[in-house]
Amino acid sequence: MPRIGTQETRPVDSRRHFIGRAGLAALAAGLAPRPGAAQAADNLPPAVPAWTRSQGEAVNWRPYGLPADFEKGVVKIKRPSPLPTEGVSLTPLQHLHGTITPSGVVFERSHGGTPLIDPQQHRVMLHGLVKRPLLFTMDDLVRFPSQTRIHFLECSGNTSRDWRSPVSKTVQESHGLLSCCEWTGVALSTLLEEAGVQPGAAWVLAEGADASGTSRSIPLAKCLDDVLVVYAQNGEMLRPEQGYPVRLFVPGWEGNVSIKWLRRIKVGDAPFMTRQETARYTDLMPDGIAREFTWFMEAKSVITYPSGGHELRGPGFYEVSGLAWSGAGRIRRVDVSVDAGRTWRQAQLQEPVLTRALTRFRFPWRWDGAPTVLQSRAIDESGYVQPTRAQLVQLRGYNSRYHNNAIQSWGIAAGGKVSNVQV
Amino acid sequence: MPRIGTQETRPVDSRRHFIGRAGLAALAAGLAPRPGAAQAADNLPPAVPAWTRSQGEAVNWRPYGLPADFEKGVVKIKRPSPLPTEGVSLTPLQHLHGTITPSGVVFERSHGGTPLIDPQQHRVMLHGLVKRPLLFTMDDLVRFPSQTRIHFLECSGNTSRDWRSPVSKTVQESHGLLSCCEWTGVALSTLLEEAGVQPGAAWVLAEGADASGTSRSIPLAKCLDDVLVVYAQNGEMLRPEQGYPVRLFVPGWEGNVSIKWLRRIKVGDAPFMTRQETARYTDLMPDGIAREFTWFMEAKSVITYPSGGHELRGPGFYEVSGLAWSGAGRIRRVDVSVDAGRTWRQAQLQEPVLTRALTRFRFPWRWDGAPTVLQSRAIDESGYVQPTRAQLVQLRGYNSRYHNNAIQSWGIAAGGKVSNVQV
Repeated sequence: MPRIGTQETRPVDSRRHFIGRAGLAALAAGLAPRPGAAQAADNLPPAVPAWTRSQGEAVNWRPYGLPADFEKGVVKIKRPSPLPTEGVSLTPLQHLHGTITPSGVVFERSHGGTPLIDPQQHRVMLHGLVKRPLLFTMDDLVRFPSQTRIHFLECSGNTSRDWRSPVSKTVQESHGLLSCCEWTGVALSTLLEEAGVQPGAAWVLAEGADASGTSRSIPLAKCLDDVLVVYAQNGEMLRPEQGYPVRLFVPGWEGNVSIKWLRRIKVGDAPFMTRQETARYTDLMPDGIAREFTWFMEAKSVITYPSGGHELRGPGFYEVSGLAWSGAGRIRRVDVSVDAGRTWRQAQLQEPVLTRALTRFRFPWRWDGAPTVLQSRAIDESGYVQPTRAQLVQLRGYNSRYHNNAIQSWGIAAGGKVSNVQV
Repeated sequence: MPRIGTQETRPVDSRRHFIGRAGLAALAAGLAPRPGAAQAADNLPPAVPAWTRSQGEAVNWRPYGLPADFEKGVVKIKRPSPLPTEGVSLTPLQHLHGTITPSGVVFERSHGGTPLIDPQQHRVMLHGLVKRPLLFTMDDLVRFPSQTRIHFLECSGNTSRDWRSPVSKTVQESHGLLSCCEWTGVALSTLLEEAGVQPGAAWVLAEGADASGTSRSIPLAKCLDDVLVVYAQNGEMLRPEQGYPVRLFVPGWEGNVSIKWLRRIKVGDAPFMTRQETARYTDLMPDGIAREFTWFMEAKSVITYPSGGHELRGPGFYEVSGLAWSGAGRIRRVDVSVDAGRTWRQAQLQEPVLTRALTRFRFPWRWDGAPTVLQSRAIDESGYVQPTRAQLVQLRGYNSRYHNNAIQSWGIAAGGKVSNVQV
């Protein structure tokens, strides 16, 4: 359910209680019809609601379940782009809870659309500087020893539109190229061991079976460390737009390296200099030099409630809540400021705090009704501190589009409206 | 994708490699058309597959994503029952990976069907031995401080049909009343504190808004310990059949206590002796005495691959994989036997091992092609050891239906067929 309060949300009126109301009076108030809700009274206690007075939907009414119709607003949104098969769709972070992103709303990025691949016909080719080139069926891949990991996935272009000014209206628009799932697959190191890597091997090419043939080069050391060849996501087989039937997953690195619809793995002695790592996905620095192979996702955080488009219903208690993550490992601490960065206090982290996974943070706040700005700041286990926007711009100028991990500011207006601001 | 191997899965032929094949020969073999797969060759390397030769589905083709059409067999199955709105549907554990159960296939149990509740009209009433009776809107509940936990949910009737003889054909039939999700909500203790519990209070009644008005009594101590009032599951709002818009969640206890479609919480000084805790959900012992309030789910495990209905493709390497869980806390160890319980060896546990959550275990196995029986045995952090079926029957006789946590046996026939057996 959208977390935007309705007119029925009552403000806090006591320090002792979160949502203060005077005993039976509250119960009585609950029974009174409200403007525009004449029908509601029929369903309020002590009346027995309509849905209790008759049998519900049959058991297994949906053999594969779906969200309630009332939640139909909780969907991905496509960012406008010239071609229907090129672009992104964004995760509705403002409507989500916890840390697992439901597979139905995991963000999408594709350069040639989503291919619909028959898993019985699909093959993954492993060749190049190996002793035994191999061709894997899906049954082969699933038969290998498997691993399961919960990791975030973030596009390097996440928050890129807000580099100069805060144009995004919601956290879905600003930070929605971000998801976190449970991934299951076989370690790429296991497949490379099966093929036998030849002396001199130093890089690995991964290529997708989509129409764009998106491909990236990855250092062999990373491949032997923690890269997975993944077939399952959140317990079930990958969704088509997430790479069905098999994708690469490169923990802590920008999403485009985790090649979807994986078709080919080639081992070589140098990077392959593909289009997506030369013409694209490089960082243009102030001196005109483009940095290549900037895969790493630094520590970042964002408040998801309250965030752009939400509206607070008057002074009182609110739980500020958001997400923090780092390509370097675990989140060590998240600080929250409710006064535009003048003072910071430590937020509570939801356990378990997992490496390279979204971490939910929460911060109790009593709003006094005055305009202010909310911010969050992540610190990871390496000691890295999420920078302010000014620090980021000082270092990297205005040419950049990727890897914007600056502190996000949400302005709270006197009336309670929340909007994207820069301070 | 179903993990049943196709004819293209090749057996292990070497001790060094999991799936041995001779280099380029393997690549060449991959190109040869196979019986009944004449079309496949067009899509195998070096041919460019059909789905690469044209643009795929548009970005955001499904604003709310769904599984691939090739996965349409991965669904819940309803167990036959006299009434369409009374009964269970079962989770397809044989097709799942990792530990998170996708919300689409989380098992169902309902006594009056699934009500379709308007969250704007829904109220939760908290009354009885409290200082201030309260009526909560959904907006009220979401506004309270929240918590997120990953926990299993198991029906006390899981595996009940196999008490006397192994009638279930698959692990979905035998153990499919089992799921594990990330749950987000407000602690029941927070709501009780808000209302103020009166002296003498000792029990809490939870009642659902479904047509059956399913209700259970829970000791106040448990409610103040770790019970949640949950509105989100795996990151999004609860699915209708899982209690939308709000349910109780009682960690480690039998599923029926986690009242769905939560409508009423009443505090009292004694158990309320509802139908579901007197006529139902009691354990009839050999002496004819029925034990009541047997909420606790003891340690249990089951091998999900290979399991009933699977078929091994000849001798060679297989990764035996399954799930273990305990209402008492963390799983400490899982042992696997590949010789009908004569010898046991320790399986690998997938980290993180969370309290009262499904834990995935894995065990590498080279099958020699001879008939045998596979078993798994869970030990939890309290030291409790999952019993054999004989031990359970010795203690509880044959009157019982609920809380069958016996060791499960899967027979492997000479040809590789896997079936449910008792040893």
